[in-house]
Amino acid sequence: MLEELKQKVFEANLQLVKYNLVVLTWGNVSAIDREGGLFVIKPSGVPYDTMTAEDMVVMDLNGNKVEGELNPSSDTPTHLELYRQFKDIGGIVHTHSSWACSWAQSGRDIPAYGTTHADYTNGAVPCARGLTQSEVEGEYELNTGKVIVEEFDKRGISPAECPAVLIHRHGPFTWGKDAFKAVENALILEEVAKMAYRTEAISGFVDNSNIGIEPYLLDKHYQRKHGTNAYYGQR
Amino acid sequence: MLEELKQKVFEANLQLVKYNLVVLTWGNVSAIDREGGLFVIKPSGVPYDTMTAEDMVVMDLNGNKVEGELNPSSDTPTHLELYRQFKDIGGIVHTHSSWACSWAQSGRDIPAYGTTHADYTNGAVPCARGLTQSEVEGEYELNTGKVIVEEFDKRGISPAECPAVLIHRHGPFTWGKDAFKAVENALILEEVAKMAYRTEAISGFVDNSNIGIEPYLLDKHYQRKHGTNAYYGQR
Amino acid sequence: MLEELKQKVFEANLQLVKYNLVVLTWGNVSAIDREGGLFVIKPSGVPYDTMTAEDMVVMDLNGNKVEGELNPSSDTPTHLELYRQFKDIGGIVHTHSSWACSWAQSGRDIPAYGTTHADYTNGAVPCARGLTQSEVEGEYELNTGKVIVEEFDKRGISPAECPAVLIHRHGPFTWGKDAFKAVENALILEEVAKMAYRTEAISGFVDNSNIGIEPYLLDKHYQRKHGTNAYYGQR
Amino acid sequence: MLEELKQKVFEANLQLVKYNLVVLTWGNVSAIDREGGLFVIKPSGVPYDTMTAEDMVVMDLNGNKVEGELNPSSDTPTHLELYRQFKDIGGIVHTHSSWACSWAQSGRDIPAYGTTHADYTNGAVPCARGLTQSEVEGEYELNTGKVIVEEFDKRGISPAECPAVLIHRHGPFTWGKDAFKAVENALILEEVAKMAYRTEAISGFVDNSNIGIEPYLLDKHYQRKHGTNAYYGQR
Repeated sequence: MLEELKQKVFEANLQLVKYNLVVLTWGNVSAIDREGGLFVIKPSGVPYDTMTAEDMVVMDLNGNKVEGELNPSSDTPTHLELYRQFKDIGGIVHTHSSWACSWAQSGRDIPAYGTTHADYTNGAVPCARGLTQSEVEGEYELNTGKVIVEEFDKRGISPAECPAVLIHRHGPFTWGKDAFKAVENALILEEVAKMAYRTEAISGFVDNSNIGIEPYLLDKHYQRKHGTNAYYGQR
Repeated sequence: MLEELKQKVFEANLQLVKYNLVVLTWGNVSAIDREGGLFVIKPSGVPYDTMTAEDMVVMDLNGNKVEGELNPSSDTPTHLELYRQFKDIGGIVHTHSSWACSWAQSGRDIPAYGTTHADYTNGAVPCARGLTQSEVEGEYELNTGKVIVEEFDKRGISPAECPAVLIHRHGPFTWGKDAFKAVENALILEEVAKMAYRTEAISGFVDNSNIGIEPYLLDKHYQRKHGTNAYYGQR
Repeated sequence: MLEELKQKVFEANLQLVKYNLVVLTWGNVSAIDREGGLFVIKPSGVPYDTMTAEDMVVMDLNGNKVEGELNPSSDTPTHLELYRQFKDIGGIVHTHSSWACSWAQSGRDIPAYGTTHADYTNGAVPCARGLTQSEVEGEYELNTGKVIVEEFDKRGISPAECPAVLIHRHGPFTWGKDAFKAVENALILEEVAKMAYRTEAISGFVDNSNIGIEPYLLDKHYQRKHGTNAYYGQR
Repeated sequence: MLEELKQKVFEANLQLVKYNLVVLTWGNVSAIDREGGLFVIKPSGVPYDTMTAEDMVVMDLNGNKVEGELNPSSDTPTHLELYRQFKDIGGIVHTHSSWACSWAQSGRDIPAYGTTHADYTNGAVPCARGLTQSEVEGEYELNTGKVIVEEFDKRGISPAECPAVLIHRHGPFTWGKDAFKAVENALILEEVAKMAYRTEAISGFVDNSNIGIEPYLLDKHYQRKHGTNAYYGQR
């Protein structure tokens, strides 16, 4: 069943590898058939290079496995909760990509520092609160989904406005109209997170006492390559 | 029309991918036929791996599309303004490359810290002022071009002296005698931006209290590899 | 002898290259046949691209070479001591991977900052004390193994709980049930070390005065891509 | 003439690309035939992907071109001076590799922080003083070589002990018994420079107030993957 959707979810999972968003078996992509009320998700702990489209697992919106020989991703209940509450999303991605995870581990929203970010979402990428001890010790993965939904409600932002969230101490979830768009949003999040890190560092460097290259050396190098008597390269 | 120029612009766009200066559909390269008063530019939002030379869009210097089925890059009015004001440039590149964008997002010029920079330009790479609210809400992309030209005028530098600019909160534009040279200048800018970041960090580390490897361990490792009785590797 | 184990150790060594954990001839993997009391290890200083499975060296648990034309890795006595004291491990890896080495060189444990780390081990990755001058000048590589075992004893952690250690001023050793699992643990350590670095930096940036993108620019970019009158891309 | 040496120098130049030590036409490798008193060096400004072994230029130790249609590297007088004064070296490399250049641009020696460094050289990698204005405006590239030799003399270190130097504001030169060893030393320098940067950063992070993952979350993730009731992956 859902062979076409399985194929898409399979291919979207492989894009995580192509875009350097995962190592080993980390990360998972799912996509939903809204009409049938079923979603397809990567199996848990299976290596990307031996995985096939047939290995994808079909789940219903009550959290029951409908088809598939393997266990679904251990993060399945988070996907489930997001599909239930975010009615318009069609695909979800979870990774442990390094830049996004580093922001999540520091518990900070990713501030909007520039137009790359503005092309993506119209405010900070929210870092949801950490789960309480009882939430962690209870239905942990389901509660992770609930905390995401709570964060968006509390801030009054919709999943359409912002296709990404960080979970404190954990990492990012992203979504989109389908599995491929969700992967694209995971990739952009990583770019945005990297640039925000570097932007803050560069802004913090300004008291630095390094006064730069000496004028005569600046001129020498510029002239030997671009001046009237340049001697770099072939004539 | 302009099939040869289209082919060059197409190839130059693909170099952005090869040099890791773009992800997804980000970035755009254009080049101008000065004699005919026409320039060729990448279409907007088209993936690099399915794009063909035929997809390139031909524009005149009044901003009218002369040939092409697709919309030109949304940054086309910036290219247009630069071709109008910088009379000697033949190609333009815009990217969201990470190191250059991070300097742009922090609103800082890239200081000239060394000879790699001096080989490129004879002063700081300027970060142009951010656009005012009315400039952003008006003809945004055209105004971006105007702000670049204003910045060069104000500082008394010519586009021949410095083949790059940062736009505050946005990212870099670079140019050159043709599309390929403009791409090369985008690549060098990224190297220069990366080195400047690291130079400032290293200069800032100097109060660090890490006093380094113990002399006896230093000697042990050096000697086991290079000493009279070295035992690393095969004899 | 032990042809199958040699083949596995050979392949696991090549994974170090694939995962970018080594350059040149750096790094070494070994694996043990507990029943026979023999372990197989990479030869010293041999390039990965000409090395064959036949080049692997067979050692006994008294440190004698049992088979092999080449010298075993100069770190062999460390492997030996770990196999003797950590009775349940089946494979060992040593690398000079950059992120793990940088923590080792700073003499710091890698703190547990998030779930990527928690998926790996249930506490900080310990940085063992530096060797004393007499330990360095004596049986250096053997003493390195002893210091690792001492550190785990002192802290009351078992090699099953934590599959990695840093040696002060040196670098990481990791282990696992076999050679492949030990390599996997070397890769995860590198990811964890990288994220911990970035997490500390991001947490340290918070006093930064960069207040982010102007609201009108944020809105402009978001709307030109996602708004009702978006004009980015093709319709 | 010297066809074999030309081939080796050609191949060693291509290794700079393979090891990501150069972009575009940056960097150059040379090697000397001590018996004949001639050295072979990369031509200036020629792209690596079209360059042939035949393009290599043969120079004598008076700085005269003996064979070759192209101009030798503009850094040739630096190579010349090093071959004259460092009698036992057989190959020289100059790059603008990012990590080494960043240390050079900050004017700092690379401190010996660990055993990766100790395997390479038995003290800091020296950063030679910047050239004076008259040295820059005179025979700049020759004076660069003289400043390197002066630095080694002043510090009492031999080129055999330390196969690398940084030039203030410029970048690294490395050497070895032949062209390939000099390239290897350029690669190791880059690794050592990268680790030293990160080591200083990590040492500087220690006042950081990030106290790490909550114990219950640490335990949850560790147990769901490694505990008695682990449910990650397939059984």
